[in-house]
Amino acid sequence: MDQGLLIVISGPSGAGKGTICKSLLEKLPDMKVSVSVTTRKPRNQELEGINYFFTTKAAFEEKINHDEFLEYAQVYGNYYGTPKWKVLELINNGKDVILEIDIQGALKVKEKYPEGVFIFILPPSLEELKKRITDRGTESKEDIIRRLDCTYEELSFAFKYDYLVMNDYVENAVSKISAIITAEKSKAIRQIALINKIRED
Amino acid sequence: MDQGLLIVISGPSGAGKGTICKSLLEKLPDMKVSVSVTTRKPRNQELEGINYFFTTKAAFEEKINHDEFLEYAQVYGNYYGTPKWKVLELINNGKDVILEIDIQGALKVKEKYPEGVFIFILPPSLEELKKRITDRGTESKEDIIRRLDCTYEELSFAFKYDYLVMNDYVENAVSKISAIITAEKSKAIRQIALINKIRED
Repeated sequence: MDQGLLIVISGPSGAGKGTICKSLLEKLPDMKVSVSVTTRKPRNQELEGINYFFTTKAAFEEKINHDEFLEYAQVYGNYYGTPKWKVLELINNGKDVILEIDIQGALKVKEKYPEGVFIFILPPSLEELKKRITDRGTESKEDIIRRLDCTYEELSFAFKYDYLVMNDYVENAVSKISAIITAEKSKAIRQIALINKIRED
Repeated sequence: MDQGLLIVISGPSGAGKGTICKSLLEKLPDMKVSVSVTTRKPRNQELEGINYFFTTKAAFEEKINHDEFLEYAQVYGNYYGTPKWKVLELINNGKDVILEIDIQGALKVKEKYPEGVFIFILPPSLEELKKRITDRGTESKEDIIRRLDCTYEELSFAFKYDYLVMNDYVENAVSKISAIITAEKSKAIRQIALINKIRED
């Protein structure tokens, strides 16, 4: 059986990673989602193993010491991490796994698992990004300017990724990502078993 | 403007390269075909610049000396070659170019133009390949056995290619190749201009 792929969907905040992942999962229902481990308390209706794996700080830190995360970060005093063992278990069972993550996290994952497929979601323009963040209405003008400065810097990391996909329309972006997944599965390097099978027959 | 891609469709004889290319061109009518240069005489209805560029032996050899071919070979005393200048002209004008070629030729092209997208077309099995060649009815039993031995050896070159696509059904194969082309155009390395544009805006 062929190994599954780890598909890392990343990019600046506001580029539309979440919407794209949701739509991609509808299109490719066999795909699994990487569920994060966190030390923060469950909120209403959050389910263990669906939204997060909830754990204690001590248990999380022990996992850090055992190198059990593809990446982790501390935000407002809580840990969040991508469990390596869960991802590898799925991949080794031939499942494709999708991981939605910010740029800093994605670059850490790339160090630990360079075989992943790293996709950078681009906003169509900084102007459009500004519009999207403003339309959300959750941030002050200063925050929006800071955010855009940050995005400008983040774009320089795009070349550390394998692919860039512009989120002009969600359907376009999702269809490109599907094509990328098909192409990655067709890579010669991923199909050693197939060739050997034909030669043995 | 982005550069076009050189899509090299290659693989063992009988794998179905020709049928795939024909169907791919119907699906992607903007794609251009690389037309070979030859010293052989035109046959009925063959048109200059459509089927081949016809030339003299002396002119061909001068082009060899000026390194003007991506690859060339001599078959039954006639030269056949892939004109580098023609392919690059199309690519530099943003056109994608498809080149259908045998394995030996493809590996030579890869030396001169490693930026190409090298796709190896696999028969579903050696058994199926035997059936296809037998059904053609143009070759003796000995020839068929020799051909299959040759294919068995040729499969070991598959890993020099970027992608392997099994030609189980032409439609499947063509749809995979279309996905590969979309994915290749999404590669970060091919989209430097796009990022710079967003940052400049």
